[in-house]
Amino acid sequence: MAAVRPPHGNAVRAGDIAEEFPTVSIDSNALGAVRLLAAHRLTGLVVSTGKSENPFTVLTAAQLVRFILPGYVQEDPALAGMLTESVADDVMERLGDKTIRDVMPSQRHRVPVVDADDTIIELAEVMSRLDSQLVAVVKDGEVQGVVTASRLLAAALEQ
Amino acid sequence: MAAVRPPHGNAVRAGDIAEEFPTVSIDSNALGAVRLLAAHRLTGLVVSTGKSENPFTVLTAAQLVRFILPGYVQEDPALAGMLTESVADDVMERLGDKTIRDVMPSQRHRVPVVDADDTIIELAEVMSRLDSQLVAVVKDGEVQGVVTASRLLAAALEQ
Repeated sequence: MAAVRPPHGNAVRAGDIAEEFPTVSIDSNALGAVRLLAAHRLTGLVVSTGKSENPFTVLTAAQLVRFILPGYVQEDPALAGMLTESVADDVMERLGDKTIRDVMPSQRHRVPVVDADDTIIELAEVMSRLDSQLVAVVKDGEVQGVVTASRLLAAALEQ
Repeated sequence: MAAVRPPHGNAVRAGDIAEEFPTVSIDSNALGAVRLLAAHRLTGLVVSTGKSENPFTVLTAAQLVRFILPGYVQEDPALAGMLTESVADDVMERLGDKTIRDVMPSQRHRVPVVDADDTIIELAEVMSRLDSQLVAVVKDGEVQGVVTASRLLAAALEQ
């Protein structure tokens, strides 16, 4: 019996190398997002916007760092060296009742979307053209996972 | 006997939370950098430039993704769906005799430098102001490690 040949040849596809990645809703709690980023040491989270035109964006850890800063440092950076009582309490107070939508910068990063059947060359073309660290992989309208630039480099070296 | 009090109080300092991070020379091999990024799934590498004015820069995984692309795809992105024989061989051929200096974009990311004695509020102020995912921590002129934005968020939640 002849081996069943996959419909698109033996090339590695986006769906083969996609990894699970925390995806959060833009209306979920911002402090939860900080905890998720901190616990898993992630560079960013995929945020689903609920819009069909631009369904995903990225919230990076760097974008949340300003919420560590006490108000007096935001007004006068020279005061950053002063010691504060509890940084954690300050962060929780500033973010506790905010949603991700509230803390997202107005200029959002769009996350490119590729199909699970796309080849890694197609993935690389999209990532390179849009200068993105991250691509969402979608199958039948559902996010199957993401591919980071370093994951893609690893897959390219293996193929 | 009274406890010895650290010179700057009990606050967490940059040196306390700095993590080891691969630092490579700008004159080292580019393929080695790709392998390092791929193996450790890093977003980027700290590149030492040897210049006193701007000692560190970052080479991100996303900046290297274009070297996965065959020449014909760079000329015509519509050809990205074509199957190639071996992506890995192509990448090795394109990067094997190049240095990191050769593949760095002309517009480089500067890595902010903080002192090991700086507080995490000072760290957050620098990272937020320069919108950087990464800060190098220096003690007596030597790099002690780096602090990523997510590491800083984790430290802030613990303090």
